[in-house]
Amino acid sequence: MRMYDLIMKKRNGIVLTQEEINFMVEGFTNGSIPDYQMSAMMMAIYFRGMNEDETLYLTMAMAHSGDILDLSRINGLKADKHSTGGVGDKTSLVLGPMVAALGVPVAKMSGRGLGHTGGTIDKLESFEGFSVDISTEDFIKNVNSIKMAIIGQTADLAPADKKLYALRDVTATVDNMSLIASSIMSKKLAAGADTIVLDVKTGSGAFMKTEEDSFALAKEMVQIGKGAGRNTVAIVSDMDQPLGYAVGNALEVKEAIDTLNGEGSKELLELCVTLGSYMLVGTKNAATIEEAREKLYQTIEDKSALNKFAEFIRAQGGNDAPIFDTSLLPNASLIEEIKATTQGYVEHIITDEIGIVSLILGGGRETKESEIDLGVGLVLHKKVGDYVNIGDSLATIYANDKDKLQAAKERFKKTYSFTNEKKEKPKFIKGIVE
Amino acid sequence: MRMYDLIMKKRNGIVLTQEEINFMVEGFTNGSIPDYQMSAMMMAIYFRGMNEDETLYLTMAMAHSGDILDLSRINGLKADKHSTGGVGDKTSLVLGPMVAALGVPVAKMSGRGLGHTGGTIDKLESFEGFSVDISTEDFIKNVNSIKMAIIGQTADLAPADKKLYALRDVTATVDNMSLIASSIMSKKLAAGADTIVLDVKTGSGAFMKTEEDSFALAKEMVQIGKGAGRNTVAIVSDMDQPLGYAVGNALEVKEAIDTLNGEGSKELLELCVTLGSYMLVGTKNAATIEEAREKLYQTIEDKSALNKFAEFIRAQGGNDAPIFDTSLLPNASLIEEIKATTQGYVEHIITDEIGIVSLILGGGRETKESEIDLGVGLVLHKKVGDYVNIGDSLATIYANDKDKLQAAKERFKKTYSFTNEKKEKPKFIKGIVE
Repeated sequence: MRMYDLIMKKRNGIVLTQEEINFMVEGFTNGSIPDYQMSAMMMAIYFRGMNEDETLYLTMAMAHSGDILDLSRINGLKADKHSTGGVGDKTSLVLGPMVAALGVPVAKMSGRGLGHTGGTIDKLESFEGFSVDISTEDFIKNVNSIKMAIIGQTADLAPADKKLYALRDVTATVDNMSLIASSIMSKKLAAGADTIVLDVKTGSGAFMKTEEDSFALAKEMVQIGKGAGRNTVAIVSDMDQPLGYAVGNALEVKEAIDTLNGEGSKELLELCVTLGSYMLVGTKNAATIEEAREKLYQTIEDKSALNKFAEFIRAQGGNDAPIFDTSLLPNASLIEEIKATTQGYVEHIITDEIGIVSLILGGGRETKESEIDLGVGLVLHKKVGDYVNIGDSLATIYANDKDKLQAAKERFKKTYSFTNEKKEKPKFIKGIVE
Repeated sequence: MRMYDLIMKKRNGIVLTQEEINFMVEGFTNGSIPDYQMSAMMMAIYFRGMNEDETLYLTMAMAHSGDILDLSRINGLKADKHSTGGVGDKTSLVLGPMVAALGVPVAKMSGRGLGHTGGTIDKLESFEGFSVDISTEDFIKNVNSIKMAIIGQTADLAPADKKLYALRDVTATVDNMSLIASSIMSKKLAAGADTIVLDVKTGSGAFMKTEEDSFALAKEMVQIGKGAGRNTVAIVSDMDQPLGYAVGNALEVKEAIDTLNGEGSKELLELCVTLGSYMLVGTKNAATIEEAREKLYQTIEDKSALNKFAEFIRAQGGNDAPIFDTSLLPNASLIEEIKATTQGYVEHIITDEIGIVSLILGGGRETKESEIDLGVGLVLHKKVGDYVNIGDSLATIYANDKDKLQAAKERFKKTYSFTNEKKEKPKFIKGIVE
């Protein structure tokens, strides 16, 4: 078999076989197929697409290119949630404790990503002493006893995907739906969960800007998951404005704690209940979605999710005091209100720009080496559809550096647009693909 | 400027500017743009194409990527002929002496290629002592005095094309008309001639198998040549059977000498007269095509072309005796007739397979290191439209090795097909693009 022939086939619109796709992924991973052939193949795939089978084969081949996590020592069916990423996304901090409180094992391996705000690990480091540097033994023990643990990236999951993504990133071959779906799902399959619940964001703060693309991606990923024998569902939700109100690490932790206390954003809770209900049913911890939703709301009312969160933080060496007094979280020295200079209904928020405001303040990583300032960020007070009078506060900015505060304020200016006509609040859950 | 953005532009169907194409070719040539980006670009071009301007810019950039031959020390307007390659193509050996005899300077720089039979230089080495290892001084002097000289590849012509072609060859991005035209023309532009006459072959023995593709390529090349300010014309001629009758180095030299003696194949002479007429008019050595054609036929009748050929061979150290007695050319020890086992009209000859028969006999190069056996090859006796009786000789095979002879005979079997219905002889000159 020669890579040349496979490129030619795909270029000419002929479907590749599983054997051919395996050959390609193995050769690319071990270096016998050079980058220049793989990038030509990726461009051919960009133009010709891949069918459902090809997408599944590619995903499986990438999933098997490195370690496959063995979760067999964890009792019961395992569920994993994956978000396509957005601004102000503190879902994991709320959802994890909720489902863990109901007996779903939450066993997460997580790396530190680049982005507007830090990843889940960075946010959790708002708790003094908290660490993901735990042994595999402790990880398994914790998941079995308290149902929730996070460990740093110790295994080499889907190295083919890592290498391929890096190549696509510099050859303008990222935005193909099958390739995006395959990239995400290869890591999820390697991570070993039985049930995979996908949180697909859509809008100006998401990777997918249109609902059409978001649903297409959701469909592709669900097809792959099911094709690989995993129980898979995708929830498509609004990211045309930040999720909830807070953007920034400790600020998002505070909003998550407020939500676990029943005082947070309605949308965030709704998303967690929806995602969680599929995790519960998938792991046989509830018989129906309705029953699962009731149970999930109950974890908020009876504070069992909040207590589970505290238990989890303690189990990984963290000081859980801020969970019961959020004023103990890392904070900022400079706090400033952004006042509205026009009146009207909030028509639109350029969401990825809100993320950049937080990044400018020091809340995210521009390069792998960047240090994150956990205390900074912003809390919005007005969202799409809200009426604003001149002088109302649109947002509060939290900073630790005057120049950065100034730059953030400048950048914030273009994010909100207003209209005099009544603007409806957007539908939050756009749909479910299963 | 970033290559990433250029790939994205082309991928999205946006036309690239001259500045962008120059950046790309320069970066690729000096190594600052990696192969994996260039191969993605080539695949994007395969799908999106290039317009006339882009194709010209790419060609010019590649032409200027290395040496540009300075032919200013050669007197008069210079003409260059380029063939897209075929089986039994001894055109240069006939055409060169014909136009040189009429005052057109034929200044060729030539490398040794791979192929069914050797290149022009290999064929000329049928003359004992002949060498292309001459100094630039002697080269210029010879062209000025006798109007014809060939020198080995001493300059680095269009290195960007060489590098790009090698990459396209392994990434299934060769067969795009603009890229093919650009590759050929970049070398022709760098070779410096004022008039470029293109011999575009079409059919089963040619790079372009269909007339449609051949005319498309001819049109693209003529557009580029004219766009670069060169007088350019393309003749599209039949290569659905070998040109003339002989295939193999010394055998082709013999057929060329026969043709210069007025005793060769009619098609070969017609092609040389047609190509030559445009070279003569282009270099102001004739006022009209009609006048040029008459002059060219005259060089055969008065033997001035034959004598010019001998003069040229002598000037580069060769023994010209075989020109006047072709039995002195390198020969073969094993000569065998291939007899027809069916009767009927020759319907088709799989021409590239005829080339492979010659290659098997040792007449061509499979790798750069192969030694060519100048004496071997085959001479056809029947061509498309000829009637054949059982027992008639279809071809004579010339070999120097029994096993190779056997293998060649086996291979030859599938090359001819017959029909009982009268088959017309194909039109030889398919058209002229100017």
